[in-house]
Parts: sequence; structure tokens; C-alpha cells
Amino acid sequence: MTGKSDRTKARLPRGFVDRQAADIRAVEEMCAKIRAVYELYGFEPVEQPMIEYTDALGKFLPDQDRPNEGVFSFQDDDEQWLSLRYDLTAPLARYVAENFEKLSKPFRSYRQGWVFRNEKPGPGRFRQFMQFDADTVGTPGVAADAEMAMMMADVMEALGIPRGDYVIRVNNRKVLDGVLEAIDLGGEENAGRRLTVLRAIDKLDKFGPEGVRLLLGAGREDESGDFTKGAGLDEEQIEAIVRYVSADPQQPESGLLTGPLPIADSELRREGTMELVEIGKLCRAAGYGEDRIKIDQSVVRGLEYYTGPVYEAELLAEIPNEDGQIVRFGSVGGGGRYDGLVSRFRGEPVPATGFSIGVSRLMTALKNLGKLQTAEIPGPVVVLVMDRDTESLGRYQKMVGDLRTAGIRAEMYLGGSGMKPQMKYADRRGAPCVVIQGGDELAKGVVQVKDLVEGARLAEQITDNAEWREGRPAQVEVAESELVATVRGIIEAQKAERGRG
Amino acid sequence: MTGKSDRTKARLPRGFVDRQAADIRAVEEMCAKIRAVYELYGFEPVEQPMIEYTDALGKFLPDQDRPNEGVFSFQDDDEQWLSLRYDLTAPLARYVAENFEKLSKPFRSYRQGWVFRNEKPGPGRFRQFMQFDADTVGTPGVAADAEMAMMMADVMEALGIPRGDYVIRVNNRKVLDGVLEAIDLGGEENAGRRLTVLRAIDKLDKFGPEGVRLLLGAGREDESGDFTKGAGLDEEQIEAIVRYVSADPQQPESGLLTGPLPIADSELRREGTMELVEIGKLCRAAGYGEDRIKIDQSVVRGLEYYTGPVYEAELLAEIPNEDGQIVRFGSVGGGGRYDGLVSRFRGEPVPATGFSIGVSRLMTALKNLGKLQTAEIPGPVVVLVMDRDTESLGRYQKMVGDLRTAGIRAEMYLGGSGMKPQMKYADRRGAPCVVIQGGDELAKGVVQVKDLVEGARLAEQITDNAEWREGRPAQVEVAESELVATVRGIIEAQKAERGRG
Repeated sequence: MTGKSDRTKARLPRGFVDRQAADIRAVEEMCAKIRAVYELYGFEPVEQPMIEYTDALGKFLPDQDRPNEGVFSFQDDDEQWLSLRYDLTAPLARYVAENFEKLSKPFRSYRQGWVFRNEKPGPGRFRQFMQFDADTVGTPGVAADAEMAMMMADVMEALGIPRGDYVIRVNNRKVLDGVLEAIDLGGEENAGRRLTVLRAIDKLDKFGPEGVRLLLGAGREDESGDFTKGAGLDEEQIEAIVRYVSADPQQPESGLLTGPLPIADSELRREGTMELVEIGKLCRAAGYGEDRIKIDQSVVRGLEYYTGPVYEAELLAEIPNEDGQIVRFGSVGGGGRYDGLVSRFRGEPVPATGFSIGVSRLMTALKNLGKLQTAEIPGPVVVLVMDRDTESLGRYQKMVGDLRTAGIRAEMYLGGSGMKPQMKYADRRGAPCVVIQGGDELAKGVVQVKDLVEGARLAEQITDNAEWREGRPAQVEVAESELVATVRGIIEAQKAERGRG
Repeated sequence: MTGKSDRTKARLPRGFVDRQAADIRAVEEMCAKIRAVYELYGFEPVEQPMIEYTDALGKFLPDQDRPNEGVFSFQDDDEQWLSLRYDLTAPLARYVAENFEKLSKPFRSYRQGWVFRNEKPGPGRFRQFMQFDADTVGTPGVAADAEMAMMMADVMEALGIPRGDYVIRVNNRKVLDGVLEAIDLGGEENAGRRLTVLRAIDKLDKFGPEGVRLLLGAGREDESGDFTKGAGLDEEQIEAIVRYVSADPQQPESGLLTGPLPIADSELRREGTMELVEIGKLCRAAGYGEDRIKIDQSVVRGLEYYTGPVYEAELLAEIPNEDGQIVRFGSVGGGGRYDGLVSRFRGEPVPATGFSIGVSRLMTALKNLGKLQTAEIPGPVVVLVMDRDTESLGRYQKMVGDLRTAGIRAEMYLGGSGMKPQMKYADRRGAPCVVIQGGDELAKGVVQVKDLVEGARLAEQITDNAEWREGRPAQVEVAESELVATVRGIIEAQKAERGRG
């Protein structure tokens, strides 16, 4: 036995979590429904590994020795930098570029997987989390973007979210880029500043227009005292942007082109607006109303790589978020057009559009909306160990085997001896019943089957003086050959009872 | 457009692979079957993240600045070393130690996930691969080990591998450790050397007794000229080990205790042998014969952390391996008792046993055995784009929507114009049919539905002068309202035809 000081401490690094059975099963159920929609839309599963060359992820600047912050990176044995993927889009871009000639285009694919962020973790902010993406590569037309918005709407409904409780908001980066151009923030030299502006606008929901003003100007201090440096814009620039993002979202789509201009007009803004109008028309023609897919100029998506339409799935229901606060839940996924990502490798334009669902966040929402099958899978039948000789163990193992062959979850108790710990274990595992065969039962060729649910109910009646009702017997003695049928009967009776309750 | 020299090269690091639709679906189907067996045995899903503190993985020695070779490691912002998990067992041990009081014990759990090895990749050897594990923590009795062997046997049959085409081999590390003790390789000071011996024995299948002799002695040079340093044992030691591992595996279990001793007897060897005999008896009593679970003293499993029974699932069928050679396929998974892993954190003994399935390797085997549903999911119905105005696109999108609502995979063609590329695309996607509505059809309120499978058959008849047989019409014109019914009819006819073929 090692001394306490020699021991390794068992602890998880910050920002990582272990997942329990209920969450794993819920995610699986949810992702199966999402997958079914993607398949219905003609998308195929294609997956990339979790490790890529850092430069392939677009995270390595030639003038830096070490990769950017925000990603987990390490050097390979040939000194090249590798990184864990921070999203599923950058690896997809690498994949398409590498296999361009082989793929039928437009290339429609989906993928589900873990991504990693080397960032400060917080409530609901993890350093490993799951995304579930769909992408169409090789088509410049906004019909592909319209389809993405429709697919997101269909995913929401496939998950049981009623119409009216979600909305897919669509905007176009070109419109915003046109505004930024008009206030002298165009060009390669302002790329960094534009990104800060995007991230500031993205916080409109969270901090309101005043918070955004601070982030566009000198900066903003949060409650914890942490200061976020702002974009350093002047008053006129800030005013133009805030007026733009605060534009009435209720304005009809047909008015987008004729409505008041934020500050100055630009070709880019006009082009972007035309595309938005076309997306709106395509969605309406396919039967998706404004209650499901809505043009909304306040949507920006904080990522630098979007080049055209962007979209976001928002839950409107007021439910607890990851921090337990009751709020309008907000974004559960989004995406946009990223015409530059594949071109980086190819030296020719390769248009692409796609979206990403934040799996854990969406699951939190569905759980709180009561849209996930939370009814646990019943625990296993536990065959108690009354005698511990090899022969008896073999006998118990045989019973367990017979139950399993009949499709019933079952196990022989593998812990220490004594009746009490065995019953406590069976209870904690949610066992529907336990099977008992000691020496007396063996001699008679019988087994005792104890119904734990009915047993608990009877015990409750006794302690609570609750009204007596006729129930099943809590324990029965049956011939060995009747074991499987008896256990099955108990499980079915309990299931029917749960259905009634 | 960027010049060729500015471009980032699209390439995967060595040892990593992209996964295609057929493989992803096959793994999913296979893992669903494995999971069903684990659940039947009363195991619950519990998952750990992919990143752990390096020392929690047991990979950090206090006298080293950098973590061990073999794992991908990097420093957190507080300078602590993190690593990608190299298996699923070490993170489980950390999890159990961290949550010990909360867990009902014996704790039965399973997990499926990617693991990472920072090693030289080779054919069939990847740096990221998937494992699917089941473990029981908190029980010292060999009944838990016997159960693991039975569960592996059941997994094999659930996957469709016929009895006789697989065997679960069981051995006990204590037996081998007893032999090593007898030849003066016991004690902490010989730990490194014992590991080299274990790895050498593990190669018996691959290199034969002569190869093992070299690895136990001075070392062995492979065909490529790479030299593996040996354990440096003397002739007598080598002889003892080779005699031990070459012991007749056909020897009946009852003879284990009375059979000839390899060199000298030891308490440890006797204890290990008794445990093996008990495992054998438990398996037989539960109805698992020697054709399914076999005691075999040549099994060692190359991992240093096993402390008792070890087991291995072996496919006996002669099928192509990952390199394409027709061989007895060999191990697809295995495991053993690791009583020390959780104790490392707790300072008290926490017995545990479990096994791991190599998912990709097992999938390769099942594919080659024809045990995986390789019939592809039919491709999507493609609605061709004959007119590109927004109104027409909306109309096509509506047709696609109607098909999807009826549960039929469908998509509107999103690529460039022209009939030829559209038909070629539909073909490559495996579309059952395409839907066509140009101006003439629109005026008449009809659509053309072209059956691509029947079309290909007819074309073949014409080119091959094949015997004419009455088939379906390759193209039909139907009222818009008949679209869904017509498409469904074609898909069903094709399905029936595939069933007949």
C-alpha cells in the first residue's frame, strides 16, 4: 500500500468532464434524429481524424514560432506542428482539397465528433465538446444556403421542438462587410479589426447595444473585473454599426432593398441584400414561413472565415440554460458560407456552405424542454450469490445466461458476501427483481424471485399507513424451469405500471 | 487567386485516416451489436474525455522533464503536462478513483472511443484508432474474469461469427510471473526486463519460437533491417520461457496442475493455475465449452499492468488481414485483471478486470467474413434543375420537400448547369431515379421520372445484345400530384430486384 504522499491525485484537467449513462444515451438518441434528417437531405457521413497539421487548420502564421492560442498543439517527431481540431470545418476543407478530383460535386457530407479549444473554461464552456455538422462544398448559389436553413428548421422539428419555439435567422456577411467598407474598415489591413467588430456584434444578445458600443470603442469590463479590449472605433463608426445591427428585424423582406441605408451604400451591401431576398423567396416557395426561417440583420456569427450568408438556429423558449438561469435559451447551432477555406489549399475558388450544431448545448435545451426520453433503461436482474463455491457460482452464472438468452439484462452479483450489500446493490442498479437460490431452494429445485418495485411499494404502504391496494406478490417461489417466464412477467408488469403512472 | 507557392498543402499527418460512409456505417452497425451484449450483461455506458493529466495516465516519471514516448503530450497554461489518452483503461481508473464513494460496486461500465498512440505508423497500425471496452471494478474473484471471457464469446456470436471460427483464450499472469520468479526475474528491479519478456512472448504468433528466442536474447532484425533490442536473458532462462509458452495448448484443463513444470515450482504459479482451473469450471458450468473459451498458457497480452487472468479473442478463420495477406486473422481484442491501476490513486487495493475490442481491426475481419451489411443505403433521388430562376428553384425545392416528408432521401441538384453533369452526378450518388420538370412539363402540370437502374439495364442490353426481358419503363411522365407515389414505386421495385439478384 502506497503512502498518501506517493499517490497520484485522481482529478480531471479544468474544462473537461466525464459523461454519465443518461447523458450518453440522450446524446445518442438526439444525434440519431439529427442524422436521419441529414440522410433524408442526401448527405453522407464522412469523418476526419482529430489531429491535423496546424497550418492545415489555418492556425499557423509564418512569422510565429508557436501555433496560435486557442488550439492544443504539439510537435511531431519530424518537428512539424500538429493540433487538435478546434472545429469540424477546417478538417473538412483539408479533406475536400486533398481528395478534390475523386469527390462528386456538389459534395454533401455530414460528420459528428469532438472538438477541442485551448481556452479558459467556464460554466457551460468546455475545452472538449461535440459538434454535428453538415456541409455542401462546390456550389456558389444561395440555393445551397437556403437549403441549409431549411434543414436546420427540419432538424429542430425532428427533435420535437414545436413550430414557434425556434427560429432560423439568416443574414449575409456581405451586407455587413458593405457597411464596414463604407466606414473605412475594408481591405486586408483591417482584417483583425473587422474580426473584433464581428465578435462585438455577436455579443448583442448577451450585453445589449450599450455593451456592444463599449466593445466597438475602448473596451468593456465584466462583473468579475476582466477587461476586454475594444475595436477602438470612433463615434461615427460605432453609431453606423449599432444602427445597422439594431435595424428592425420585423421589417418585411421585400423592404430590405428599399429600407433606409445605415450610412452609405455600397455594391457589396446591395449584392448581399439581393442574395438575402432570394434566400427568403426560396424558403417561402418550399413552404418555410417567416415563423421558421427569418431574415435578420443582427446575426453575424463570430467566425472570421464566413464570406456570404450566415445562419443561426435559436431556441425561443424560456428554459434554464447551463448555468441554471431561466432565459430565452438562444443559439444551438449555426453556420454560413465559407468560400475561402478550401481555396486556401487549391488556388482556385471552391465555394462551400455548412452549419454546425452544438450537441451538448442542444441536449441541455432538449432535456429542459422534456423532449428527451428520460425514462431510464431498466437495470439488470441481479442473481444473488448465496453460496460461493465454484459449483454454485456456475449454477448462478447459468441462470444469468438463460435470462440473457431470453433478451433480459441480467448479472450475477460479483461483490463481497452478505445479503444486505447484495440487496443494496440491486436497489442502486435499479434492478426490477433479484433471483435467490440457497441450499434449501436448490434441494427443492426452485428459485425465489423478489420483485423490488412491488417490494418498495409494500414497504412504503406499511411505513406511511398508505391505503392498501391489491398488488402483485413481492416474492414468489417457482420451479427453476419457470425462472425466465417469471422474471419476464415481473418486468412486463412493472413496465405496464410505469405506463399507467 | 493565390500562387502555388503560397498555398497550404492539403495533407494528413502520417498514421491518421479519413473515414468514408461505408466504414462509418459498418462501425456503427457493429458497435450497436457489441453494445447490446454489454447492456444485456448489465453494463452501463460511462465515458471519460480524451485529455487527462499525464501523470494520471501513469505516463509521467518524476525523474523526467518530458512525458514518456508513445503518448501525445502538451503543457497546459499552468505548465502541467496533459496527454491524449492511449487507451480507455487508464482514464477509467482515474474516474473510478475520483468518484469512488459515489459508485455502486462492483462497478460495471462500458465505453467506446478514440485513443491515440504517438508511435511509428505502419500497415494496419494507426496513431488514432477506436476501442470498445467493458470493465468491472471492485471485485477480486475470478468469477468476474470468467464473465468477461463469456461476454467476449457472446460478442463474437452476436456479430455473426460462427462457433468454431473464434476462440477466447484465457491465461493467468501469475503463472507466467511464477515462472519468471523461478528464473530470477522477479522483483521491482526486473520490471523493465519482464516487460520486454512479455512483449517478446506476445510475438509468438508472428515470429514463431525462434523469433521469440532472439527477442529474449540479444535481439532480432526484421526484413526491413530494423533491429529490436532483446531482453538479454541467458540460455537457461530463454529455454525455460520457450518451454513454458510452447506447452501443448491441447492439454486438458484438469491436467494444468499435474502437468510437467516448466523449470521450478512457485507459490505464485500454483495460485495462478488454481484460478485458471476455476475459470474453466465456471465457464463450463455456464455452458461455454472449450470450443469457445480455452485455457491457453501462451497468451500473455503485452501490457505491463495486468496482475492476474488475461484473455484474448482470436479469430480462427483464414481471411485477408489489413495488409491483404490471407492468414489466420488472430486477435481482435483482449484484456485482463489490473488490480494496481485504481489503487495507484487510492492507496488501497481496488481490484478490476476488463477487456478492449479493437474496433477497426474487428471491422476489417467482419468485412472480409461478409458479416457486415455492405448493401449501401440507396442514394438520394435527385431533382434536376432545368430552369434556374428563383421561382423554378423554389418549385424544385418544394418537390424535394414533399419527397422528404414521405421519408424518401432527396435533393435538388446544386451544381452547375447542363443536363450531362446533372445526370453524371445522379449516377455517382447512386440515385434510384431523377425528377425532371422543364417548361413543357410545367405547362402540362407533369413531371418526368427517370429510373436510373432500369435505364442502365436497358443500355447494357443494347450494348451487349443481352437477352431482352420485359422490364419497367425507364422513364414515365406523371401528374405532379403523383410524384411521391411514382418515386416510391420505383424505389420499391429496385429493392425487390436487389433482393432477387
